[in-house]
Amino acid sequence: MSSNSFGQLLKLTTYGESHGTSIGGILDGFPSGIKINTQFIQQQLTRRRPGQSKITTSRNELDKIIFLSGIYDNKSTGTPIAFSVQNSNQRSSDYSDIAQNYRPSHADFTYDQKFGFRDFRGGGRSSARTTISQVVGGSLAQHILWKEKIEIYAYTSSVGNIELKTPYSELDLSQIENNIIRCPDEKIAKNMISYIETIKAEGDTVGGTITCVIKNIPIGLGEPVFEKLNARLGFAMLGINAVKGFEIGSGFNGTVLKGSEHNDIFYKQNNDIKTRTNFSGGIQGGISNGQDIYFKVAFKPVATILKKQETINKQLESSTINPKGRHDPCVVPRAIPIVEAMAALVVADFYLINKSRKL
Amino acid sequence: MSSNSFGQLLKLTTYGESHGTSIGGILDGFPSGIKINTQFIQQQLTRRRPGQSKITTSRNELDKIIFLSGIYDNKSTGTPIAFSVQNSNQRSSDYSDIAQNYRPSHADFTYDQKFGFRDFRGGGRSSARTTISQVVGGSLAQHILWKEKIEIYAYTSSVGNIELKTPYSELDLSQIENNIIRCPDEKIAKNMISYIETIKAEGDTVGGTITCVIKNIPIGLGEPVFEKLNARLGFAMLGINAVKGFEIGSGFNGTVLKGSEHNDIFYKQNNDIKTRTNFSGGIQGGISNGQDIYFKVAFKPVATILKKQETINKQLESSTINPKGRHDPCVVPRAIPIVEAMAALVVADFYLINKSRKL
Amino acid sequence: MSSNSFGQLLKLTTYGESHGTSIGGILDGFPSGIKINTQFIQQQLTRRRPGQSKITTSRNELDKIIFLSGIYDNKSTGTPIAFSVQNSNQRSSDYSDIAQNYRPSHADFTYDQKFGFRDFRGGGRSSARTTISQVVGGSLAQHILWKEKIEIYAYTSSVGNIELKTPYSELDLSQIENNIIRCPDEKIAKNMISYIETIKAEGDTVGGTITCVIKNIPIGLGEPVFEKLNARLGFAMLGINAVKGFEIGSGFNGTVLKGSEHNDIFYKQNNDIKTRTNFSGGIQGGISNGQDIYFKVAFKPVATILKKQETINKQLESSTINPKGRHDPCVVPRAIPIVEAMAALVVADFYLINKSRKL
Amino acid sequence: MSSNSFGQLLKLTTYGESHGTSIGGILDGFPSGIKINTQFIQQQLTRRRPGQSKITTSRNELDKIIFLSGIYDNKSTGTPIAFSVQNSNQRSSDYSDIAQNYRPSHADFTYDQKFGFRDFRGGGRSSARTTISQVVGGSLAQHILWKEKIEIYAYTSSVGNIELKTPYSELDLSQIENNIIRCPDEKIAKNMISYIETIKAEGDTVGGTITCVIKNIPIGLGEPVFEKLNARLGFAMLGINAVKGFEIGSGFNGTVLKGSEHNDIFYKQNNDIKTRTNFSGGIQGGISNGQDIYFKVAFKPVATILKKQETINKQLESSTINPKGRHDPCVVPRAIPIVEAMAALVVADFYLINKSRKL
Repeated sequence: MSSNSFGQLLKLTTYGESHGTSIGGILDGFPSGIKINTQFIQQQLTRRRPGQSKITTSRNELDKIIFLSGIYDNKSTGTPIAFSVQNSNQRSSDYSDIAQNYRPSHADFTYDQKFGFRDFRGGGRSSARTTISQVVGGSLAQHILWKEKIEIYAYTSSVGNIELKTPYSELDLSQIENNIIRCPDEKIAKNMISYIETIKAEGDTVGGTITCVIKNIPIGLGEPVFEKLNARLGFAMLGINAVKGFEIGSGFNGTVLKGSEHNDIFYKQNNDIKTRTNFSGGIQGGISNGQDIYFKVAFKPVATILKKQETINKQLESSTINPKGRHDPCVVPRAIPIVEAMAALVVADFYLINKSRKL
Repeated sequence: MSSNSFGQLLKLTTYGESHGTSIGGILDGFPSGIKINTQFIQQQLTRRRPGQSKITTSRNELDKIIFLSGIYDNKSTGTPIAFSVQNSNQRSSDYSDIAQNYRPSHADFTYDQKFGFRDFRGGGRSSARTTISQVVGGSLAQHILWKEKIEIYAYTSSVGNIELKTPYSELDLSQIENNIIRCPDEKIAKNMISYIETIKAEGDTVGGTITCVIKNIPIGLGEPVFEKLNARLGFAMLGINAVKGFEIGSGFNGTVLKGSEHNDIFYKQNNDIKTRTNFSGGIQGGISNGQDIYFKVAFKPVATILKKQETINKQLESSTINPKGRHDPCVVPRAIPIVEAMAALVVADFYLINKSRKL
Repeated sequence: MSSNSFGQLLKLTTYGESHGTSIGGILDGFPSGIKINTQFIQQQLTRRRPGQSKITTSRNELDKIIFLSGIYDNKSTGTPIAFSVQNSNQRSSDYSDIAQNYRPSHADFTYDQKFGFRDFRGGGRSSARTTISQVVGGSLAQHILWKEKIEIYAYTSSVGNIELKTPYSELDLSQIENNIIRCPDEKIAKNMISYIETIKAEGDTVGGTITCVIKNIPIGLGEPVFEKLNARLGFAMLGINAVKGFEIGSGFNGTVLKGSEHNDIFYKQNNDIKTRTNFSGGIQGGISNGQDIYFKVAFKPVATILKKQETINKQLESSTINPKGRHDPCVVPRAIPIVEAMAALVVADFYLINKSRKL
Repeated sequence: MSSNSFGQLLKLTTYGESHGTSIGGILDGFPSGIKINTQFIQQQLTRRRPGQSKITTSRNELDKIIFLSGIYDNKSTGTPIAFSVQNSNQRSSDYSDIAQNYRPSHADFTYDQKFGFRDFRGGGRSSARTTISQVVGGSLAQHILWKEKIEIYAYTSSVGNIELKTPYSELDLSQIENNIIRCPDEKIAKNMISYIETIKAEGDTVGGTITCVIKNIPIGLGEPVFEKLNARLGFAMLGINAVKGFEIGSGFNGTVLKGSEHNDIFYKQNNDIKTRTNFSGGIQGGISNGQDIYFKVAFKPVATILKKQETINKQLESSTINPKGRHDPCVVPRAIPIVEAMAALVVADFYLINKSRKL
């Protein structure tokens, strides 16, 4: 039990608050001898970075990764990989208001109640800035997956009511990075961006969904009974800030189907086993069956809005709060690399565990 | 890491296959001195039991609980509580077909690939019969919650396209057990039952959703960062057989709202802190805020249908399968106590963990 | 955290009290496809069994193993292996005295204080009868080690002041089972047995030590930093009832040596790497180096003596206790298979973990 | 499973190599609202620091602690406490010899075999420099113990053949810090120091033992069956570099006693329960009984000696090695704060866990 750790054989432990000196973590259980692509990791951080486009917060952080251990001669040594990212662009002076008043739908109230007090600056430990560590951990995990040519793609599938309805299998996933909302359909991407700009101008925010696809996954990953691959993926996603829902394969829509419609018929194509449909989302009985894994993650609208709101204060008396300054109008574009990272951590962990299941 | 264990301080480890001698488990970390209500536990098992109504499978099992340790003088001793339930109504002779052919959307193929072979009788370890242990573990966990008057209600919120749209807060949750589908709206319940009967007559199956509500939860349960209360609840639910989706609070519907609509405004009522809306589903920053927790779980249609289907066999050659005999046309009514049980395990665990967070 | 579980990838969880219906456990993480030698497991239990010779307690238990899951067609399925052993020869009537009075150097007092009450019959959960589960778990773990030809030998190296001083490397370890004290030197064995008989006649008890040797261990087992192979072996041994000490390699005697005497010089013999001495006990930096592992375990004299003793009672008032009936004069001969079992669990676990350390 | 993590509810995860940029770790599960005494932590590090006296290595490191998270307004926030200590006085140029040749009784060979290669500079991850993180973690854990007035004392009880035979209960433990060997008997301390100076002049090293005493421990800490308080203490100590043995209470000497001599008779003194002897070392059935806990730890002589030695090289061919430069002639004086730290981590963890055992 370590609530700031994630994973079993490959375990990420993270630390850091929004306005501490740094954010970072330790990845333990990483196999030895793997060449580390620091540039890739930095690039994933840059995709998560604030200030990257007109539709993200203007807080400006370089988010430059520094490795402290576990890598020698550019290769993993098998010992814990520690890393950190400095916090630089802090404006603690902004926080007098939120020190006193609980922001609605934030963690201010619950942290204060649970721990007796809190580091209120920028949300402290509850800040989404902590996901930096997850991106680093997941980017390292990707190195394990590359050995097996496992590929992970995440993209924006909806922003508010604007939805990309095309199934992932008909999309060109190489187009995801072509626009700042990270939606592989250029036309819908434009609508999404324009909608976010409107919302931002109002000082408001909006939610959205991210779809994630995992390709070339080996058969046999995932463990019965509790540690199903889908359950760990869900756990990983629901631990990301602002996530309120997770569905895999047919998900909620599958509940209206009949078994005769929903069953994925096995067939043989050349020497591969395939299924005619993939309502299972690539996982059966909690274990990967070799078909694509795909799932969708629901993000609520960001709670920080630039509008005056009724609330209570630290003394639990009625009050108001009127946040100012920088905010993200929609968390989804920056959450893409976080979803990929958490998916990578889950898959890499099960990949390592699976090595012990048959002698 | 123990894939057949669930929980941190309160840890359930389970064993058993569909057609082994028994199903059971060990619950470790259960506090001492708690009077055990065996009747309640048996009653929860009976709600999960096959053959309980015309809309469940006719496999007839008594599912009588036996405790093997950890209880003395009718009270918990603080040592592991082991329990078992005998398997009696086995028809192994039914299984010659599925020994050879992989049932579509079952775990037959993935188990064989992962482990090299499998106990094919009734699905072996992948059978939903293993959830017996979860119901027992969760029913024990409920004893901890009773101390704090925490209440857990689960009910059927949809079967196929038939949906109970009334929010949980406007329902009379004491009516859930009034009908065999376990839906607190009598009229919709009738439609659901009648629909399942039709489906059953076709030899087909259908999916559905279960909504779960947790009331009187103390403020402060759940842990940052990865062990968010919502994340553990999701993990618990997604580990249940046939589950494909989980959403909490506003869930997927919340993604279309603006922040100004979605934020739950705090206010004071007498001496209680309340929120005007509860899109957060009672959890903020991963920690309970004292409001009701509610979430929805999506169950796919049962994969066993009494229809001939194309598939592949053990030799990975094309084949057909034609299941006969008993099956559940819809898993939802029997899954209600499983959802409650897994929720209870999660909440009780965080309740115990929380005792160590402030001195 | 599960205090009744042991191991990481290969995890044994146990249950049961001295006078409950049964003792047993669940072994999770056992690889699939391994043929199970039930006879070997039964034989290990029989070596631990009470009533096996004139120098053990006369409580008569058959200790017959029953497997409940995880084995199909005589092979492990990769799912949890549950097992149980019935308690039959219970004499609960013996226990009126110890229900009221705390036996000196037993766990009666500490259990009552910790848990508020206890199952006092035969020591309840603190009884050494619980080690049955460890012997079964360890005997299963041995199956993994057989694949690598790893051999584990434990023998009695001292009883009271009677000590076998010959180093293990000069002993014929095939002779261990030739006498009831399990000492490979027949002459010293006789002295030990005769001494125990004398002690038993006095109604008294005596301590002793067990030496354990692990041969043919692969290089590379054990993990830095905390999970050193020696640390896990020590943890395993110190968890066995009545153990007060553990030393590996040179142990306490090594502390009086100089580095120049103690360093194990590497050399090459044919194509094998060897060390001229083995003060390290086959482990360097927490990782096996391929040389024999050997360690010694100290067992205190059994606390149950047939003599009247001063003590306190449940009301924490002065009292006396006068145990009658059956007791073990020396725990060591019956502890031999327990030491072997716990060693096997540790080595098998690290063997499985090691599969994930290099890709 | 995370081999670089220690503890259950209070979990320390560490990182760092001898010659990386820094050494550090993350302590998770630390309760909120505790005022942090940084000066105390620094002082414990200073007691571990190289170059502190004429009988330690002359490598000169300031070992200044920096906290990165989890502390706000000088109090713990309940979120992970991350910390680091810079490595400054590195002489990587010293290491060309050990890059090629395996130092006898070091971890060079086993790391290379396990991981395929290693960071050879100063021993990399196997260096005792990594114990810095343990000292910091343990010093933080002490803050929890202070709340209960639990006191931990460690002292040097032998160096080579020079042994302090007086039982701990007759020593003045406030005198430990009066001399550089940290032995509370001034006369024996002088002999120890003088012996170490001789050994150092020879370029040789010597082993020793440390005794640790824990006073004012609450009754009830420790968990059956595997997680006995003594087992966790042993695990903690055996994970410290160079440790080869652990004994608690009567230890190995207790094995020669009879039960009638060894049993600790309970009696009542005023309103306290005491035992006339304390061969149990304050722990019965794995659970603290309120008497002093005491145990002894065996440290082998340091493997780095300034003498030419036969060995093998990276190509597994015969070779020689001739280490030069700085070394510790005896690890014991610097290991005192490490033993205290690991003991503190164990006790604090069980203290937190115990809060969940009775409602």
